[in-house]
Amino acid sequence: MDFDVVVIGAGGGGYPGAFRLAKSGYNVLMVDPKGVLGGNCLYSGCVPSKTVRELAHTIYRIKNVLGQEVKVDFKEIQRQKDRVQEIRFKQHERELSEHGGVTFMKGIARIRDPKNVIVDVDGKEVEVRAKYVLIASGSEPVKPKFPGSEYCITSDDLFEYKSKVSDLPQDMVIVGGGYIAIEVASVFSKLGVKTHLLVRGDRVLKGFPEQMVKTLLSSLKLDIMYNSPLFEVKKVGSEYEVIFGSGGVKRSLRTNLVMLATGRKAVIPKGSEGLTNEKGYIKTDEAMRTSLQNVFAAGDVNGLAPYFHAAVRMSLAAAYNIMANGEPIDYVDVRSVPVTLYSIPSASYVGNVNPSDAIEVTYNMEDEVMSQMYNEMDGVLKLFFERGSLRLLGGWMVGVHSQYLINEIGQAVAHGLTARQLAEFADQHPSTNEIVSYAARKVL
Amino acid sequence: MDFDVVVIGAGGGGYPGAFRLAKSGYNVLMVDPKGVLGGNCLYSGCVPSKTVRELAHTIYRIKNVLGQEVKVDFKEIQRQKDRVQEIRFKQHERELSEHGGVTFMKGIARIRDPKNVIVDVDGKEVEVRAKYVLIASGSEPVKPKFPGSEYCITSDDLFEYKSKVSDLPQDMVIVGGGYIAIEVASVFSKLGVKTHLLVRGDRVLKGFPEQMVKTLLSSLKLDIMYNSPLFEVKKVGSEYEVIFGSGGVKRSLRTNLVMLATGRKAVIPKGSEGLTNEKGYIKTDEAMRTSLQNVFAAGDVNGLAPYFHAAVRMSLAAAYNIMANGEPIDYVDVRSVPVTLYSIPSASYVGNVNPSDAIEVTYNMEDEVMSQMYNEMDGVLKLFFERGSLRLLGGWMVGVHSQYLINEIGQAVAHGLTARQLAEFADQHPSTNEIVSYAARKVL
Amino acid sequence: MDFDVVVIGAGGGGYPGAFRLAKSGYNVLMVDPKGVLGGNCLYSGCVPSKTVRELAHTIYRIKNVLGQEVKVDFKEIQRQKDRVQEIRFKQHERELSEHGGVTFMKGIARIRDPKNVIVDVDGKEVEVRAKYVLIASGSEPVKPKFPGSEYCITSDDLFEYKSKVSDLPQDMVIVGGGYIAIEVASVFSKLGVKTHLLVRGDRVLKGFPEQMVKTLLSSLKLDIMYNSPLFEVKKVGSEYEVIFGSGGVKRSLRTNLVMLATGRKAVIPKGSEGLTNEKGYIKTDEAMRTSLQNVFAAGDVNGLAPYFHAAVRMSLAAAYNIMANGEPIDYVDVRSVPVTLYSIPSASYVGNVNPSDAIEVTYNMEDEVMSQMYNEMDGVLKLFFERGSLRLLGGWMVGVHSQYLINEIGQAVAHGLTARQLAEFADQHPSTNEIVSYAARKVL
Amino acid sequence: MDFDVVVIGAGGGGYPGAFRLAKSGYNVLMVDPKGVLGGNCLYSGCVPSKTVRELAHTIYRIKNVLGQEVKVDFKEIQRQKDRVQEIRFKQHERELSEHGGVTFMKGIARIRDPKNVIVDVDGKEVEVRAKYVLIASGSEPVKPKFPGSEYCITSDDLFEYKSKVSDLPQDMVIVGGGYIAIEVASVFSKLGVKTHLLVRGDRVLKGFPEQMVKTLLSSLKLDIMYNSPLFEVKKVGSEYEVIFGSGGVKRSLRTNLVMLATGRKAVIPKGSEGLTNEKGYIKTDEAMRTSLQNVFAAGDVNGLAPYFHAAVRMSLAAAYNIMANGEPIDYVDVRSVPVTLYSIPSASYVGNVNPSDAIEVTYNMEDEVMSQMYNEMDGVLKLFFERGSLRLLGGWMVGVHSQYLINEIGQAVAHGLTARQLAEFADQHPSTNEIVSYAARKVL
Repeated sequence: MDFDVVVIGAGGGGYPGAFRLAKSGYNVLMVDPKGVLGGNCLYSGCVPSKTVRELAHTIYRIKNVLGQEVKVDFKEIQRQKDRVQEIRFKQHERELSEHGGVTFMKGIARIRDPKNVIVDVDGKEVEVRAKYVLIASGSEPVKPKFPGSEYCITSDDLFEYKSKVSDLPQDMVIVGGGYIAIEVASVFSKLGVKTHLLVRGDRVLKGFPEQMVKTLLSSLKLDIMYNSPLFEVKKVGSEYEVIFGSGGVKRSLRTNLVMLATGRKAVIPKGSEGLTNEKGYIKTDEAMRTSLQNVFAAGDVNGLAPYFHAAVRMSLAAAYNIMANGEPIDYVDVRSVPVTLYSIPSASYVGNVNPSDAIEVTYNMEDEVMSQMYNEMDGVLKLFFERGSLRLLGGWMVGVHSQYLINEIGQAVAHGLTARQLAEFADQHPSTNEIVSYAARKVL
Repeated sequence: MDFDVVVIGAGGGGYPGAFRLAKSGYNVLMVDPKGVLGGNCLYSGCVPSKTVRELAHTIYRIKNVLGQEVKVDFKEIQRQKDRVQEIRFKQHERELSEHGGVTFMKGIARIRDPKNVIVDVDGKEVEVRAKYVLIASGSEPVKPKFPGSEYCITSDDLFEYKSKVSDLPQDMVIVGGGYIAIEVASVFSKLGVKTHLLVRGDRVLKGFPEQMVKTLLSSLKLDIMYNSPLFEVKKVGSEYEVIFGSGGVKRSLRTNLVMLATGRKAVIPKGSEGLTNEKGYIKTDEAMRTSLQNVFAAGDVNGLAPYFHAAVRMSLAAAYNIMANGEPIDYVDVRSVPVTLYSIPSASYVGNVNPSDAIEVTYNMEDEVMSQMYNEMDGVLKLFFERGSLRLLGGWMVGVHSQYLINEIGQAVAHGLTARQLAEFADQHPSTNEIVSYAARKVL
Repeated sequence: MDFDVVVIGAGGGGYPGAFRLAKSGYNVLMVDPKGVLGGNCLYSGCVPSKTVRELAHTIYRIKNVLGQEVKVDFKEIQRQKDRVQEIRFKQHERELSEHGGVTFMKGIARIRDPKNVIVDVDGKEVEVRAKYVLIASGSEPVKPKFPGSEYCITSDDLFEYKSKVSDLPQDMVIVGGGYIAIEVASVFSKLGVKTHLLVRGDRVLKGFPEQMVKTLLSSLKLDIMYNSPLFEVKKVGSEYEVIFGSGGVKRSLRTNLVMLATGRKAVIPKGSEGLTNEKGYIKTDEAMRTSLQNVFAAGDVNGLAPYFHAAVRMSLAAAYNIMANGEPIDYVDVRSVPVTLYSIPSASYVGNVNPSDAIEVTYNMEDEVMSQMYNEMDGVLKLFFERGSLRLLGGWMVGVHSQYLINEIGQAVAHGLTARQLAEFADQHPSTNEIVSYAARKVL
Repeated sequence: MDFDVVVIGAGGGGYPGAFRLAKSGYNVLMVDPKGVLGGNCLYSGCVPSKTVRELAHTIYRIKNVLGQEVKVDFKEIQRQKDRVQEIRFKQHERELSEHGGVTFMKGIARIRDPKNVIVDVDGKEVEVRAKYVLIASGSEPVKPKFPGSEYCITSDDLFEYKSKVSDLPQDMVIVGGGYIAIEVASVFSKLGVKTHLLVRGDRVLKGFPEQMVKTLLSSLKLDIMYNSPLFEVKKVGSEYEVIFGSGGVKRSLRTNLVMLATGRKAVIPKGSEGLTNEKGYIKTDEAMRTSLQNVFAAGDVNGLAPYFHAAVRMSLAAAYNIMANGEPIDYVDVRSVPVTLYSIPSASYVGNVNPSDAIEVTYNMEDEVMSQMYNEMDGVLKLFFERGSLRLLGGWMVGVHSQYLINEIGQAVAHGLTARQLAEFADQHPSTNEIVSYAARKVL
């Protein structure tokens, strides 16, 4: 079979570029083992987990503002999650059918050489010749092996389509200190589950802005056990006994569910191992080019910004640069990609949030009107402006609607807007975004 | 008494400028008949009405997504509304005490001449000399007189602090077709009230983008009676009989509550009548100058953009231009002020939404992920880009979170961002703002 | 022969796109009857004419500032002009050799159908198959026929490589009122030639900003005869008698040289006549697409902005859009293309210079420092800012260095910079550009 | 005497702010020992030196392009310089009379305390009370003392109004390696003077971008003697013997003129010594505030950017911040101030020209069309773009018109424009600015 482009992976790093190339007449083969578009994000990641989060948050609000307990069966929540996944699977099918030039193949791709890709379709090998390859094979959870690891689930098990987890546990141990661990702990706590975090080292959320993490944690009030490596999980009746270290001594906990959230790693298609960097990701430049001519990589697999929205942007950049045969016409500004932690409250940041010498302004969420309406007044907004030019370098926020505000802030960072420009704009009242102009006005 | 500046009105057009001037050492007198800061917006306008709206929306969501009816006493909702008002009154008191240079006086101001203002404090006249006057006396509902008008309330009665309306009526007639009428009808419908709109002419929401209104109305499904002037309201037991015209014949309706939402008009301080334009507003330029030297006007009273956030921006511009003694150093771009209709779903617009020849892109909310999570998939986003330059001229939206997205869109309009710039930014996933980049990417 | 793209024309609308496509691996054929790259601009247009202009200006300066007459043989000036043309022909040859994928063919192209182009090479027809065609065949002078027209030259004759005109005439009649007529009259006047302009109607420089033209003309002090259609040119010894109408009566003039500058028209390749609009240009949109799929047009031939720098920009846009197979990824903003009249002084404009309601600021060149140094203090700068936003809408200028300043102004117009942004920048002192910030600062 | 503001210094750091304050009704006293507006820049600095430079350049061009030697008496050049100075003195007088609120006093100011300034007017002390003080006392040449230093001149002697230097020396020794030394050496060489530079260390133009200096020096071909400290100057008849060290041994040179260009230092008004930093400048922040409330400093005296255009910008910022009583409303972005070395060719830079990791593009002036016309093809343009965002970080240029181009580049740096934005603009052809877009297009 002959194609212009083979796209390996049908998630955020894959399908947007595939569709864009098809729009311009390219003949594209998209290969994915899942057999559906959307990647992990849709199958078991951001979309289902945030559906659960939004419903948990809504239920929590009734109680928090109006003092009324709403009893909801977790099955109902999971059902709505499945519905959203179904809607989106269908949406992608429709998009696929609208883009005539894309052929979809369920299978596992292997790169023989830059011009030849072999796809394993149910054990049968299909040979494909292509001018360009876009690797967008994504990432997967690292599932460590230890005594009793077979009793543990990952977030994929929790959120996958038609998940087996349909009842809320009373008590839950989450192993790990990354953003998935924190999100799940926060959301399930709000749903009434007693959660405990086991963290190997003395910090959580490494790589996130330190002050933001501090602010967030003081609001989340999670039960975090630091310096607590996990040794073993034992099944005891319908419960689990979790054995872990703490301050040199072994301790144990009884719980109903153990979830591992111990990191993710790139999925490297066979034949592209030589393209990886020391961290195991496919090495790419800002134009999404790998070290091999005509081979591009986008999304989680290149480790530049492992978020769905970044993957989509990279996928499009790869598509444009394939059109230009690798003489770049599009570059991705990874620094201006916003990142959100979907805990309750959420926390978001974008740009340079550790500038060496900048004008720093703060807005406390207790003065923000929507937070007052919801009685969720925890949090802070911080903006960092370059001295002299007043250009917005970056910002972070903990609090209501951070996932929406961070886009206004991010657009400003991406396009070099200044404190004055933010100040001159009259953000809608009442909307949480107002605090962007309020904060900027403190400089003037 | 001698002051540098007298600010007439303590709402959005008044206190921000007063505080900014005080920060720069100006001696400011702020006069307001209410005796509290925040103006109508806080006392009986946007803040309390949107608190009710948010709670109504949250309750509605539980039912709409999870199929569960939450019974909430309206008293609880009004109580939370009062709490928010109290928090904000205190917040303003704190701000006032933080700005040493501002003296607050409860009273009614009258302008004798540009340098002399008389304040009526409980019937006693206080003479004040000032170098500058900032008129920010706001607007008030027009309450027409007709037989039975004494039985009718306005939105002020509904939302004022410690409102007497603490129970939901079963049935409610709203007279008017402006944005307050539509918002109240939409929100109270979601709370289970049967609402009816009596509209004098054949259109509602005049001045709003036509296509947006059409999209919104098809989603709101309100009971609107066009060409239906109100003649009389009669009290019949605990109910009201509303008599109105319709197609040349008189009709009547039985209802529990009649609310008049028949427009607002500027509050013109005595002595400044000569400064008004033909529509009864104080005439000002983009620098907030009136036709009288050293007299400025900001907020609803000048009719340029009768929204709280616009008032705040104008108030600050007036403050800066007072510092510069009327040789302007700050101008307000009224065209880039966003406007939101807080119905459920909400509708927002900003900039030029009727360009003569532009590239127009559309994104349907049924494909938007947060709308899917909430099962509120009505609505549309429209963006308008200038041909050639691809500069964003304006946009409108009906649907989930329009009040937040409109700020990202508005910042782009205000600062001349292009489709390409919007497309290059990776809006946070999942967040409704994603559709801004998705829409922009359709152009490229 | 098979190519990916056939580019018809090797001028500003042709070679930049051809080179860009070759850089991305496209196999490009470029066809031009001249046999050299650079088009009219280099062969007989902007480059040679401005070389003469710059030298004339330099000579004039010595006299004007230092009071010293420099006697220069016109042959020397023409020799330098030829040298510049030679340098640039070689430069283009080098560029051609650097872009392996471009084949150059001297000949005349005819479009059989969108996929087949026939090239007449010295009478022999070569058949070429191509996926895309870029028409960039430029424009040519309109040379009207009348008694004695064979005695008249055009600007092409004056400025072509190895021009036959090597001596300055004492007296010269220029027929026409367009920018070429004005430029030649101005430059040759400065060289000591007595020039006369015969203009058919009652205006010159139609399409240029009216106020700018007025300012320019008052400085140029040319001998312009309006409403003076030309009837006949007779050879009388070594001189010419020019017979023209004036106020209903025939008049005549004796002169040494008659130059026709009576407009230009598009060169339409055979087979593409169906693609033209009512003015005889190939009709294209902002993405340089014609009404025929896979056929694009750039440069003078589409009449959108008949200037070399606009042609280059359009050519590149066409190249990018060819890469995208006509689903546009690049658009040209014709409104922000600067235009300069290379008279002495020069005059330039960009953007919207006739806004209906804008803040207009003026800077007089008599206060500008470089003009004072050169003792060339005629002229004015005008900038137009949008009310409220202070966005720079456009500007025009008559005076020293307008051709350089217009770029700073144009960048600002193209990217929506505001009066405040211009004011915040400290333009280099001493440089004429300072007046850009000085003018902007008048608003603040 | 009582004033709102005392401005110490009537140069670029002083009068713009004084005028702006007066425009807003402030009562301003401006004090300067020179008795005329314009400061050193006009009296003996950039304006007169660049007038000489422009004329030298024009004369040189005739010879360089047309091969014709123009003999010009240096007196004529100095006369034109004087004329320009006279025009500008008058211009400033006119501006002063247009700004009613500014009182000008010839004298020397001393700060008794922030609210009291004493002015020495011809030995008589005038006491002035003021609310604000703006120190803009500028800088002056450091004139070292050594045997024979009384025979040496500074650039001030060369360029002051009615300078005594009216004849060109045949041979000239310039002591120093700063920009004044290089400019004078370059310009006087072009006028036919044999120039020699004595430089103490092993580098010239410290603080300027290294690669730019290297490129410039290779074009200037100056006679520079490094590691050559000056010991003595002896008068020998009508000549001077200059004795200096070189490689450990003493050497001597005979010359007609010795000019010292050994740096400048801030002029600190008495009473403000406590406000200086370790380098002897008044310490100010980006808002032009000193460590003393209500005392501001602008221009050379604060050492932030010792250039006239920077001084003007700072002066205005100080004025706005005085209006705001020191709660800043304007900040100066020193990084985006362009700097030009007015040698022939000139060299200019702006922004960050030493980024750690950026996309760097180069354009050689031999390919630039105006350089070809003038046969001055030396030089290079370098632009530095941020990876990913493609934002222009900075640029430098050696070659024709660098002083004009640097403004287009600087506006882009100041406002965060990207390679794509520069590339999308069609710079005027033919104008040197074209290379800005040409260079940017190399990235795409």
